[in-house]
Amino acid sequence: MNNELILKNLRNVPDFPQKGIQFKDVSTLFKNNECIEELRHELLSLYADKGITKVVGIESRGFVMGAILAADLGAGFVMARKPGKLPAETLKATYMKEYGPDVIEIHKDAINEEDVVLIHDDLLATGGSMQAVCELCKAFNPKKIYANFLIELKIEGLNGRKVLSEYDVTSLLTID
Amino acid sequence: MNNELILKNLRNVPDFPQKGIQFKDVSTLFKNNECIEELRHELLSLYADKGITKVVGIESRGFVMGAILAADLGAGFVMARKPGKLPAETLKATYMKEYGPDVIEIHKDAINEEDVVLIHDDLLATGGSMQAVCELCKAFNPKKIYANFLIELKIEGLNGRKVLSEYDVTSLLTID
Repeated sequence: MNNELILKNLRNVPDFPQKGIQFKDVSTLFKNNECIEELRHELLSLYADKGITKVVGIESRGFVMGAILAADLGAGFVMARKPGKLPAETLKATYMKEYGPDVIEIHKDAINEEDVVLIHDDLLATGGSMQAVCELCKAFNPKKIYANFLIELKIEGLNGRKVLSEYDVTSLLTID
Repeated sequence: MNNELILKNLRNVPDFPQKGIQFKDVSTLFKNNECIEELRHELLSLYADKGITKVVGIESRGFVMGAILAADLGAGFVMARKPGKLPAETLKATYMKEYGPDVIEIHKDAINEEDVVLIHDDLLATGGSMQAVCELCKAFNPKKIYANFLIELKIEGLNGRKVLSEYDVTSLLTID
């Protein structure tokens, strides 16, 4: 991948959402079509030959490149959403965030045993929400589960890779 | 468009999010790649020759086909988000929902005067959130603003088209 292009266009926002956090803002990648094309190309080179039938995007930044990847792969796109947003019957998983438990849901009829699933999100930090969505997807008993992030943060105290060690995880770019 | 394919795959959920509402659930379109392809094809036939440089998706269902359309058009993708979600400086608009005011935001550097903007969302009902995002986009003084919905609801008491009468609005499918 053209790391220089992506790093040049990725915005760092200090102290968001709270003091001391250097937030990596992918919105400045998404608004630039050259960056979209670079990310698309890289995602396709990783997943074009994997037989993916469903891409699951994690609400809501994971919907952006997740939906584009689903269209590029000829797969369906499934939304993993915050509680109460999906209208039909769901499976739910609970996970811990900084200030307490949070819940994420997928429609019960969104995935089946014939699917090969790729779960996508923008950033790997603690890995908590991805782990919850992986667990949810496992309950559907699909043929295989892959997980992908655009950007992986390697920062002391963040153990995202360890938390997800049982899954087949890739990230396009790692940032110290 | 193959209306039959879309209607067959669109799920109706009675009494969501509240009693008496027949909710049109596009998640059953998104999970089906044949439907994604049909919507893509129709969106491209409407907008391929308009010189669109930015597609704005309204959080969060508008991110799905909005992002795919941006990629297909070679445009950038901009997120219109709920308050407090965007990390950098934003422009904000307030609009009325059933139970009171709501706010939607776009990053201040997301759109400029050289842009031709297409705002996309899944459903046209009251038109309130789309009107707010149109107003927001106008503040950036772009060359032109288009608005698109996958599905337009024609139901007594919903005046979405009237609310948006000053804009160039399309919908792929109208449902009574």
